[in-house]
Amino acid sequence: MAEFRKDVVTGRWVIISTDRRKRPNDFLVEQSKVIGADHCPFCTGAEAMTPPEVLAYRNNGGPPNSPGWEVRVVPNKFPALRVEGSLDREGEGLFDRMSGIGAHEVIIETPVHTKTLATMSEQEIERVLWAYRDRMLDLKRDIRFRFILIFKNHGAAAGATLEHSHSQLIALPIVPDYVRDEIEGARHHHLSKERCVFCDIIRQEAAAGRRVIHENGDVIAIAPYASRFAFETWLLPKHHGARFEDAPRQQYQSLARMLKSVLMRMDRALETPAYNMIIHSLPFSEQATEFYHWHVELIPKLTRTAGFEWGTGFYINPTSPEEAAQVLRSVRT
Amino acid sequence: MAEFRKDVVTGRWVIISTDRRKRPNDFLVEQSKVIGADHCPFCTGAEAMTPPEVLAYRNNGGPPNSPGWEVRVVPNKFPALRVEGSLDREGEGLFDRMSGIGAHEVIIETPVHTKTLATMSEQEIERVLWAYRDRMLDLKRDIRFRFILIFKNHGAAAGATLEHSHSQLIALPIVPDYVRDEIEGARHHHLSKERCVFCDIIRQEAAAGRRVIHENGDVIAIAPYASRFAFETWLLPKHHGARFEDAPRQQYQSLARMLKSVLMRMDRALETPAYNMIIHSLPFSEQATEFYHWHVELIPKLTRTAGFEWGTGFYINPTSPEEAAQVLRSVRT
Repeated sequence: MAEFRKDVVTGRWVIISTDRRKRPNDFLVEQSKVIGADHCPFCTGAEAMTPPEVLAYRNNGGPPNSPGWEVRVVPNKFPALRVEGSLDREGEGLFDRMSGIGAHEVIIETPVHTKTLATMSEQEIERVLWAYRDRMLDLKRDIRFRFILIFKNHGAAAGATLEHSHSQLIALPIVPDYVRDEIEGARHHHLSKERCVFCDIIRQEAAAGRRVIHENGDVIAIAPYASRFAFETWLLPKHHGARFEDAPRQQYQSLARMLKSVLMRMDRALETPAYNMIIHSLPFSEQATEFYHWHVELIPKLTRTAGFEWGTGFYINPTSPEEAAQVLRSVRT
Repeated sequence: MAEFRKDVVTGRWVIISTDRRKRPNDFLVEQSKVIGADHCPFCTGAEAMTPPEVLAYRNNGGPPNSPGWEVRVVPNKFPALRVEGSLDREGEGLFDRMSGIGAHEVIIETPVHTKTLATMSEQEIERVLWAYRDRMLDLKRDIRFRFILIFKNHGAAAGATLEHSHSQLIALPIVPDYVRDEIEGARHHHLSKERCVFCDIIRQEAAAGRRVIHENGDVIAIAPYASRFAFETWLLPKHHGARFEDAPRQQYQSLARMLKSVLMRMDRALETPAYNMIIHSLPFSEQATEFYHWHVELIPKLTRTAGFEWGTGFYINPTSPEEAAQVLRSVRT
């Protein structure tokens, strides 16, 4: 049984999820093996290899868990958290813990094994974004949850164990540390200036231009000023909005277009890197929405860079965001 | 020229260090190559391959930068920061930056290429700890610095590019985020309880025993309650002290003994894993010392675990600290 535990010094929550040890490849010593096209549980025709779907977009009118789908969402077969049970909280002297309640789902982005977000059509990417949204809107009705994490590990170096393009969703009864830090910083900025800090960043970056990678009607892609990683990229909607799942329809379309553009640029400039993608959105538990601004963070996993933080405990980035933006901006798409 | 930049949302400082791009292996695509015994700049006889030493323990009375040393400290050939220059601070609209002043040194722990911290004698390890201390005491006289980070990347998976056993030191004009979080949490605990939170943890863990890996006269090794990583281990001095560099002499001896014991246990139980080690010590800029407690964090880099945080943005640990402690405790040493 998984549980949340809180670090008494920093207040940071972690999940201790020993259930995941039942995974086919044990964590200890062996290299993690990536599952390729043979035995892929995410390909059309292999629907029986996953837990029953919780959502699928299919236009052939076929029954659930059969071929014909375009995007398919299933519970993670090796979940870090479980949906069943009540949210029990408990102390142990100094320490605090909570039962490991949550949802852990996999968004299978395409039936085609060889496609990636960078090579899908804009319409296909947009469908993936709608699947994120539909699952968020469904899960946020569960009052036990405060935050939904949507992320993607692409490539073995970024932690993906299945080659077939997919994202993951984790619904949590806590707000993770990195979100809390961002929320508090944004709240502080708003309190002192009555402006959204991300709106301020967008205005300043659009005017300066040096760190802008690409821009379309609704979305701007920038290399952030204090990039932690080489070629770190943020995609921000230009119009203020706190929650991904409440975005107006055309923002998904613009975001899909921007994602394709940026990922194609990375593929060309950085030789199809592994990457992580995380959607940053306001926790459900927050009422006020004027101070936070949803966005997407993309972090290519380049050799020699990502390792440094583990060792030092803080970030040293060998590529300036100005240089990264210039490289990605000048890719011919 | 390197610079510090502050993220306007979270307040997190990063180093943008484009100088490091001059490293022999470029960061972009190729796998980082580890330098082995051939052409090793850290072996006895290769002293001319490093910048001139800033410290060496030698008992043959030989001249600097010649063989005969036991521990040798040299400036990093590809430093993330530079010592020369003044600490200029500057704004750019919303953003803040600072010139990349700092020291970046390498502690060559042994003249013998094949030795590791786990296989050195206790006396040899203790000498390494004294070298850390001597360099800290020297560098803290430079009023531009607020914090000295001492860390070790062991093994390619942990970010080491040279096989020969070494640690690194970075002197910083800022306090890194992860230290600031720890300091603030510890200060808060002390304000409300008039006790050091780490002393409280030691008392509770020693009494419970389940997460204790090993104990000697002055040092206790535990698997922390909210471990972020499988087999994460903290080594804490049992008697309160805020700064590593101010520890009494016998604590270095006990820490050396404990390091050897814990690293040997990890080598046996986890098949000589790559690992990171970080020394946590109170920043120079802090006056009060009653609320903070120096310690050492060891994080073995095991396949399939460390990747998760990058993707999710927060920590999911597949091994409970109770299980990790039990495994390491029962290794025959």
